[in-house]
Amino acid sequence: MLTPASSTLETTVRRRIDYKTKPLGALGRLEELALQIALIQQTETPVLTNPHLLVFAGDHGLAAEGVSAYPADITYGMVKNFIAGGAAINVFCRQNGLQLLVCDVGVNGSFEENTESFVKYKIRPGTRNMRYEPAMTTDECEAAIDAGKTLVNGVQYRGCNVIGFGEMGIGNTSPAALLMHRLTGLPLDQCVGRGTGLTDEGLARKLAILQEVATRHADQTEPMAVLTAMGGLEIAAMVGGMLQAAENGMVILVDGFIATAALLVANALNPSVRQHCIFCHQSDETGHKQMLYFLEAKPLLSLDLRLGEGTGCALAYPIVQAAVAMLNDMATMDILT
Amino acid sequence: MLTPASSTLETTVRRRIDYKTKPLGALGRLEELALQIALIQQTETPVLTNPHLLVFAGDHGLAAEGVSAYPADITYGMVKNFIAGGAAINVFCRQNGLQLLVCDVGVNGSFEENTESFVKYKIRPGTRNMRYEPAMTTDECEAAIDAGKTLVNGVQYRGCNVIGFGEMGIGNTSPAALLMHRLTGLPLDQCVGRGTGLTDEGLARKLAILQEVATRHADQTEPMAVLTAMGGLEIAAMVGGMLQAAENGMVILVDGFIATAALLVANALNPSVRQHCIFCHQSDETGHKQMLYFLEAKPLLSLDLRLGEGTGCALAYPIVQAAVAMLNDMATMDILT
Repeated sequence: MLTPASSTLETTVRRRIDYKTKPLGALGRLEELALQIALIQQTETPVLTNPHLLVFAGDHGLAAEGVSAYPADITYGMVKNFIAGGAAINVFCRQNGLQLLVCDVGVNGSFEENTESFVKYKIRPGTRNMRYEPAMTTDECEAAIDAGKTLVNGVQYRGCNVIGFGEMGIGNTSPAALLMHRLTGLPLDQCVGRGTGLTDEGLARKLAILQEVATRHADQTEPMAVLTAMGGLEIAAMVGGMLQAAENGMVILVDGFIATAALLVANALNPSVRQHCIFCHQSDETGHKQMLYFLEAKPLLSLDLRLGEGTGCALAYPIVQAAVAMLNDMATMDILT
Repeated sequence: MLTPASSTLETTVRRRIDYKTKPLGALGRLEELALQIALIQQTETPVLTNPHLLVFAGDHGLAAEGVSAYPADITYGMVKNFIAGGAAINVFCRQNGLQLLVCDVGVNGSFEENTESFVKYKIRPGTRNMRYEPAMTTDECEAAIDAGKTLVNGVQYRGCNVIGFGEMGIGNTSPAALLMHRLTGLPLDQCVGRGTGLTDEGLARKLAILQEVATRHADQTEPMAVLTAMGGLEIAAMVGGMLQAAENGMVILVDGFIATAALLVANALNPSVRQHCIFCHQSDETGHKQMLYFLEAKPLLSLDLRLGEGTGCALAYPIVQAAVAMLNDMATMDILT
């Protein structure tokens, strides 16, 4: 993807990093990160401005089949928790200076007015039950993608150039596993995990149901068709958000299993998205490790998290900041001579 | 080590964590961290106050034998860099809100006045050459340990209850490898690595010299005797600092290969230090992985760093803060019902 101009930039940035007061390569992953961000921003002095974390929420018709350890109305309750500021992602965003913006694209329940940190963009109150029909119509899926694109353009307008994506949706490890299965070609049992905490019996039931869903929608192999048939409204919104963020030249922070499933779709639609992505953590959910391997991605953190909400992005963000600060603020070897 | 009272506290804290708005165990390592800090502080609502990073600097007589890729006077230059604010540890401490305090316990070169972030506590201008004699006399080693203890008491007096330890000293992967070899019983070649970037030839030479040193001081097996014969002034200061921090009930942030070697000594002198320790990162230096294994420690970060200075502590600190914020600031399940 690199033009000759960026190859020159790459050389310049590498030289700048090598000339900092440290042994060659001694800052490891931070050096790679700094280079990546410099190339995304096409400058040897990158800056991160007004970082945002977008959380898209939506319900899943398939949850009626008992594929989650939690009841579906937890989605609604958790969005209220986000609005009230009490969820893990609120706590971590406050701590690390990210602006949180929550968007209802498909929650089964209604909320009061929009606020500075909550936006209503509801397509419908949850996807259809993909055991019996496609999760979305083409129009619904495209509307969700548009919601993601619109929000990303909005936050960029407010000066944001680095953005993480998170989600909330009881049951959404199921569509994520199905997208992974169809887009990577890996066997379904390697893609399906315990989600929020299924028992062995629950996991077996989930796998059997998802096998049935995969068979029903076996004809869908193109990324948009797969997303429409077996995705989720919040996942489609993340796909749109990621595509737009890349087009806008922004840095994308990738969270765990669900967010990476959205990236699999975005990447299949436009492979240039990949170079904008910083992989923030490796989830404890079965399948995420192989998703990352498929994308040739090395996560920054591995803390046995399996919460979603964008928590991995918010926790990894200080490391991303450190990489940029290293490039801009460290002294050079001159001072040692 | 836990008293019946703390067992009750452990149960209470675990219940508090389990009752947060998240699936059971979904915050993985952050949950363990929060519990550990609660037990260190003996409260279910721990707080981290006035975090400090102490960097001890010292030179090494053994550096004359060519065991490092860099000349010994880099130690002096880097301390000036710390004072001027341009080193990696300055950048990361500023970013993450840690107060940096640099202490010269053994640099071969003199500095101007003490400042708020620099303290002179010089024992001697570098250790003796351990290839021919013990690195320190007993008095020198004890003085360095006292320096560490005194500084830790000083920062605690200023309201600090969480402290990281870093170091600067060209050649100091050699004493660290020797301490590791003698205190863990692992073969020397598994303890010796490339440090700041030795070639294959340089590494072979380093190993041969360290083998000679180990043989010369083969009689020393008690922790204090090992530290005196084959340690370093900055390493001894870290040992003292860690012992005092544990005695003061503080949280200890453990950095990479050199700092963990200091912990091996501190832990051998007083095993209760261990439970105060948060292992911040796994260094790229050969041997660190096995050191951590020996201490049954899981590092928070693994970013291929091999710089020292306490950089791993400063980079991991936001994760430690996140664990405490989770315990104190997240909403409970009540709001979902």
